[in-house]
Amino acid sequence: MRQSRHAAIGVFDSGVGGLTVLKALMERLPMESTVYLGDLARVPYGTKSGDVVTRYALACAHALMEYELKALVVACNTASAVALPALEAALPVPVIGVIAPGAQAAAQVTRSGRVAVIGTQGTVASGAYQAALRAESPALEVRARACPLFVPLAEEGWVEGEVPRLAAERYLSEGFLDGVDTLVLGCTHYPLLAPVLAQVAGEAVTLVDSALATADRVAQVLRTRELTRLERGAVERHYLVTDTPQRFIEVGERFLGRPLASARQVDLRVT
Amino acid sequence: MRQSRHAAIGVFDSGVGGLTVLKALMERLPMESTVYLGDLARVPYGTKSGDVVTRYALACAHALMEYELKALVVACNTASAVALPALEAALPVPVIGVIAPGAQAAAQVTRSGRVAVIGTQGTVASGAYQAALRAESPALEVRARACPLFVPLAEEGWVEGEVPRLAAERYLSEGFLDGVDTLVLGCTHYPLLAPVLAQVAGEAVTLVDSALATADRVAQVLRTRELTRLERGAVERHYLVTDTPQRFIEVGERFLGRPLASARQVDLRVT
Repeated sequence: MRQSRHAAIGVFDSGVGGLTVLKALMERLPMESTVYLGDLARVPYGTKSGDVVTRYALACAHALMEYELKALVVACNTASAVALPALEAALPVPVIGVIAPGAQAAAQVTRSGRVAVIGTQGTVASGAYQAALRAESPALEVRARACPLFVPLAEEGWVEGEVPRLAAERYLSEGFLDGVDTLVLGCTHYPLLAPVLAQVAGEAVTLVDSALATADRVAQVLRTRELTRLERGAVERHYLVTDTPQRFIEVGERFLGRPLASARQVDLRVT
Repeated sequence: MRQSRHAAIGVFDSGVGGLTVLKALMERLPMESTVYLGDLARVPYGTKSGDVVTRYALACAHALMEYELKALVVACNTASAVALPALEAALPVPVIGVIAPGAQAAAQVTRSGRVAVIGTQGTVASGAYQAALRAESPALEVRARACPLFVPLAEEGWVEGEVPRLAAERYLSEGFLDGVDTLVLGCTHYPLLAPVLAQVAGEAVTLVDSALATADRVAQVLRTRELTRLERGAVERHYLVTDTPQRFIEVGERFLGRPLASARQVDLRVT
């Protein structure tokens, strides 16, 4: 099936976190229409197994394919870590995850060759970042740690002050950052905690957020496949959620950095 | 349909939290067999809407009804708050939630007549505790507050030290406890944080955990319906989960206070 330049870019995440990726996409490719789906009825993915997350990711993708899409962005590190092969096999459009672009960005940044990754339990346990970083540069020394409290802290809006600082100190302690000069924020919620993380990690450590790198990768995929939209025109922004949209809209505006007019509730067919 | 005295008591929760209720049941009614279901594939319920939680609760109940049950315990405050009428309408066995027993216990404890309730967003927004406490005693002054970080703190095992103390101070601040002498732990995860909560709330405040009150209510329902098991015999303990059991077993032992031998993974039919 040949996709159209006029088709939209589909983006999904378990909830609001992927809006940091959507934000980067809207800035990098402002002429492209987007359809975002947040799977609020099953959030979070980060504590669930690869099999369960893959089933949910496929259901999200199929719901988005009811729109005319030319690419699908998996704006969730956990789903990118475990479900990318299944999504690529199931869908007729290119599928772009956040992990390979984030790993590439980190490999370009590091000078010491020691890279640390923080993410959900699912992402860290999958080993996907570790593998992607070693694929970029086999000599890299990679360490990864799950930080389960960062998602609820970001969602609660507790992104500054003592509680997130102490949590960050605890997760980044015990030599985890020894010799590390690059810290990958391997979860789309974590950019909201970037000021605290930068403070705790110290000036010698550069934080890498995969949102911008992912938006660059999407632009490149569209260009290579001659799918970039060429003429100006009305840009459509659709938001779908699988539970009541009120809190998504409230919390989501912090993640998207702009007002989020409305979101439509849909049911997924999860097999 | 007439239930048998030999049938088991079904218990469900979104995850491990309900094991605090199961523990009380096992101590109060040691001769009764139990089947516990933790809906790990959709945990947590506390951030989701009443409609979605009701769909999940019905699916949990139907999965449990594949065992021969004589009563169903909704060991989750959020599901008890929003799904009890739907469960009672759908099931042929008595359904016991945790909110009415917890409210009754709190109404018996308070002297000042000012009761505070803490729970998930879903439980607090439902107003179920507020209504249940006023049904016990219309003159009670009830205030309620959602504390979304307490569930991830309990699951992460961060139940002592600075992070939970500061979180508790923040949630219980701004006059929330002024004149209050009774604090209802309106979420089955919160008993793990009881020492920190007691310290922050101070000696004048009694904590009420609905697990014991719920076990008493179950004993009373069985007695009234002549369903109490009379003779000693082999007691069966079944654990079902909707995602991989490993972490449930590890974390669950902290909640149950004893080893949890094994758990079987099942799929729910969620409509």
